[in-house]
Amino acid sequence: MTSTPGFVAAGVRCGLKTSREPDLGLLASEGPSVSAMVDTRNALPAAAITRNRRYPRNGFRAVVVNSGSANAATGSPGVDDAEAMAARAAGALGLSPWEVAVSSTGTIGDRLDLPRVVAGIDDALDARSPEGGHAFGRAICTTDAAPKGGAFRVGLRGGVVTIGVAAKGAGMIRPHMATMLAYLTTDAGIDAAALQAMTAAAAASSFNRISVDGQMSPSDAVLVMASGSAGGLSAEDIARFGDALSAVMRWVALQIVRDGEGSSHVVRVLVSGAADDDEAERVTRAVGDSPLVKTAIAGRDPSGGRVLQAVGQALAGAAGDPGVVVVGVNGIPCDADRRDEAAVAMAAGEYDLTIGLSRGDGSSEAWFSDLTHDYVTINTDYRT
Amino acid sequence: MTSTPGFVAAGVRCGLKTSREPDLGLLASEGPSVSAMVDTRNALPAAAITRNRRYPRNGFRAVVVNSGSANAATGSPGVDDAEAMAARAAGALGLSPWEVAVSSTGTIGDRLDLPRVVAGIDDALDARSPEGGHAFGRAICTTDAAPKGGAFRVGLRGGVVTIGVAAKGAGMIRPHMATMLAYLTTDAGIDAAALQAMTAAAAASSFNRISVDGQMSPSDAVLVMASGSAGGLSAEDIARFGDALSAVMRWVALQIVRDGEGSSHVVRVLVSGAADDDEAERVTRAVGDSPLVKTAIAGRDPSGGRVLQAVGQALAGAAGDPGVVVVGVNGIPCDADRRDEAAVAMAAGEYDLTIGLSRGDGSSEAWFSDLTHDYVTINTDYRT
Repeated sequence: MTSTPGFVAAGVRCGLKTSREPDLGLLASEGPSVSAMVDTRNALPAAAITRNRRYPRNGFRAVVVNSGSANAATGSPGVDDAEAMAARAAGALGLSPWEVAVSSTGTIGDRLDLPRVVAGIDDALDARSPEGGHAFGRAICTTDAAPKGGAFRVGLRGGVVTIGVAAKGAGMIRPHMATMLAYLTTDAGIDAAALQAMTAAAAASSFNRISVDGQMSPSDAVLVMASGSAGGLSAEDIARFGDALSAVMRWVALQIVRDGEGSSHVVRVLVSGAADDDEAERVTRAVGDSPLVKTAIAGRDPSGGRVLQAVGQALAGAAGDPGVVVVGVNGIPCDADRRDEAAVAMAAGEYDLTIGLSRGDGSSEAWFSDLTHDYVTINTDYRT
Repeated sequence: MTSTPGFVAAGVRCGLKTSREPDLGLLASEGPSVSAMVDTRNALPAAAITRNRRYPRNGFRAVVVNSGSANAATGSPGVDDAEAMAARAAGALGLSPWEVAVSSTGTIGDRLDLPRVVAGIDDALDARSPEGGHAFGRAICTTDAAPKGGAFRVGLRGGVVTIGVAAKGAGMIRPHMATMLAYLTTDAGIDAAALQAMTAAAAASSFNRISVDGQMSPSDAVLVMASGSAGGLSAEDIARFGDALSAVMRWVALQIVRDGEGSSHVVRVLVSGAADDDEAERVTRAVGDSPLVKTAIAGRDPSGGRVLQAVGQALAGAAGDPGVVVVGVNGIPCDADRRDEAAVAMAAGEYDLTIGLSRGDGSSEAWFSDLTHDYVTINTDYRT
């Protein structure tokens, strides 16, 4: 984040995490900016989501994030706590509370320790600087093995703009959702409506296409803030910028799935020949969420049988003949006579799993991680 | 099975399993009988399912089952193999091929070793006896820790009838499906249409209410054969018999979930207050299939947060306010001040997880097992 002109950030320790890792992050625009946001579809959203939805999603100029406690399932007192977080940061930044977004991630069900959070916000305000992006990225992590983020320089016809990103997320990752916390900044000049549209589209082709464990978090959110300090974009550059935004989100989404809890393999599943794109998406999700497929990936089982089982489950009740299904690894068919070859391909950390149906023109792609002993260890020991 | 008058059974080893365990079972009625059957909704059913569906489900008088190979994803040659299994048994039993049902369970994707299976059928035909039920039950197992079955004497107004049952299944178990292999025999006299209706109803309240891993097998089937040798049932006794059939299926379904792959806890989830029964069912399934809930059960985490996450995911997009959600363990609320009490209850091998919504009158119940290291070990090492 450090290199997006016009933004400052910080990450500090306020004591919510028993691990003594940093757990409070602040990211703010120093001047005028617009924003865009997408968030969870979970019907029981966390307090921060409920609180942010009260205000225009195009008007956020800062965000304050705590890790260690999700402030979820905390009822209206939890929403009051989220409001208090925003108010504290807004006061010092000279913003209105509705210009400050809030996120909380960590264990579900406990009230925030608000005095610690408020003290942390004060520390983060003191520490904020243009170089604070990495510290911010560390402070928003929970079970993540490493912070995820960076800054990209994007060449447009009208000049160079920057897109910075910091994200977290290693569990509760599921396609079809804004599935984790991601914060993006840019100095590009773009109006809020266009930014919202391209944010939604970019999230759909990135964060909504990854799965670690099929679980939809009540806290997921993607926030993009654009300061415009690099000048307004031409119509042509707006399209290019949208492509760049998608590419950055995809890059960080892949980092998230690579850091999937206990992940030892990342598989890109490519479904073609489905009756339509929705059906293809159902198949990708059934395959990516299947514990039998995920353990087969971990065990490098090239038989394809569990993939077929999941495909058949996804197509249960679908109209028409299920047709022929061809499963391959990096283009090598999982037939009896080429299984050894497929097994070699499956030894790689990342590969393509292709599923060819013969029902129509629908296609879909997604990335998912496998299911290992480490996933069970992390989630058996980690109290939510 | 031994004690259902009029039926014979056997279990032998034909060499499909490398473990040298028995892998070929035969169960047959010695006289006239009727049958009922429910099977998988997987859109890519295994060859045995495709083959059995060619014939009336009320006319099966015997079944031949192999374990070690599922004869699934084997195309029309696989269906020919299933037909050959039935023909071999039919010839020796003096039945038509369409009177013999077939099942195969085990690894997916390989052709059957038909010469071994045929030799096994011949051995099983030689070995068949009224006392063969236990051997049959052993021969149909795959990753099961133990055979599941028994025989029940049921007192009706018109006399005593017997219901025998043998079942297998420890993975690919999911609600809303005929989810494993189960064979039931009875000497009660009941017409085939009534038997089919009560079989479907009993399966819906038993096998369709258990979940180990949310996966729908392409081979699942429940077959009930009734010889009528104990005499016809009165209208009143038909209802009683239906209740007994449900009770037996429920008993064996619970054995299956207790033997869920790697299971260390079995949880009965009771959802109430949903908008309708369908919504309640979606909630039970989302909770029972959630790897985060399943690892929390394994880790005895009483916070309830992961349960709320799964409930919110199940209600995503549902009309109306999600309302208040109360989570409890054996009636103890998972509130911050009673968590220690709930944690004690979760130390038991089996308990109730209650989820109270405030949206309407819909309710549902289901049983599921947890997600442990043993599940990962079994499914990483076991080649399908």
